[in-house]
Amino acid sequence: MRRIAADGETFSWDRNVAEATARGWWFPEPPGRTVVAVDDDDTVVGTAVSGPNHGGPAAHVATASFMVDPDFHGGGVGRALGEHVLDQAQADGYRAMQFNAVVETNTRAVGLWRSLGFEVLATVPEAFHHPVDGYVGLHIMYRRL
Amino acid sequence: MRRIAADGETFSWDRNVAEATARGWWFPEPPGRTVVAVDDDDTVVGTAVSGPNHGGPAAHVATASFMVDPDFHGGGVGRALGEHVLDQAQADGYRAMQFNAVVETNTRAVGLWRSLGFEVLATVPEAFHHPVDGYVGLHIMYRRL
Repeated sequence: MRRIAADGETFSWDRNVAEATARGWWFPEPPGRTVVAVDDDDTVVGTAVSGPNHGGPAAHVATASFMVDPDFHGGGVGRALGEHVLDQAQADGYRAMQFNAVVETNTRAVGLWRSLGFEVLATVPEAFHHPVDGYVGLHIMYRRL
Repeated sequence: MRRIAADGETFSWDRNVAEATARGWWFPEPPGRTVVAVDDDDTVVGTAVSGPNHGGPAAHVATASFMVDPDFHGGGVGRALGEHVLDQAQADGYRAMQFNAVVETNTRAVGLWRSLGFEVLATVPEAFHHPVDGYVGLHIMYRRL
């Protein structure tokens, strides 16, 4: 997590986020859920957090965030996590899933979510300051469950 | 706040939200800001909370939430709060403001934000369960500063 946050290319987190802060975000109270993906040696290679995107009368739409160890990019970890989280959200009774801030230059993530049935509802213009590409958009992505 | 939350028509909060929870949301750490609107007798008639919508590389886009005492609806309280929050956000250096969940049937709010220069970037379909109108959309609204 520290490496992904420090990299500053995909997460809307402080690049030097404190461990306690990140733990707070990644381990929400129920009905929030946290999962990890492990390889054959039980090494954690990715993780996801999910839960309601808003509360009360809007709590039937889920959201989720995903991190994959950069050393394991391209190995299907994100897809496995995504499929699991979608299945679990459907089982939990959510009616849709919404991602609030997918960096438009994160083409690996955007392509993965599209392949799993998400569409871009809107792109918030220049909402993310990428260390290489400058101001780029944040996609709001959505799919029914 | 209790009355507005319990009403269930405009806020994506638990309708029986605990006071401590609401206080936590409405009084964020800096750079979050909380303001109140008062009438000539210094009675609080409305309030707003504002701050960065996301963190780190996305922290230059602000968000805000507003509540006006229902007994004072139509009296310009929301507009006064909105204008103040927009001016303050601009002064604080934010480049834009985004609202994440404006209930589409809340025509008073939608009209106010449009009149203050906001556009609807997207409407998340059926994302809010209104006690009278059933499943209605949540607007994501946006304007540059």
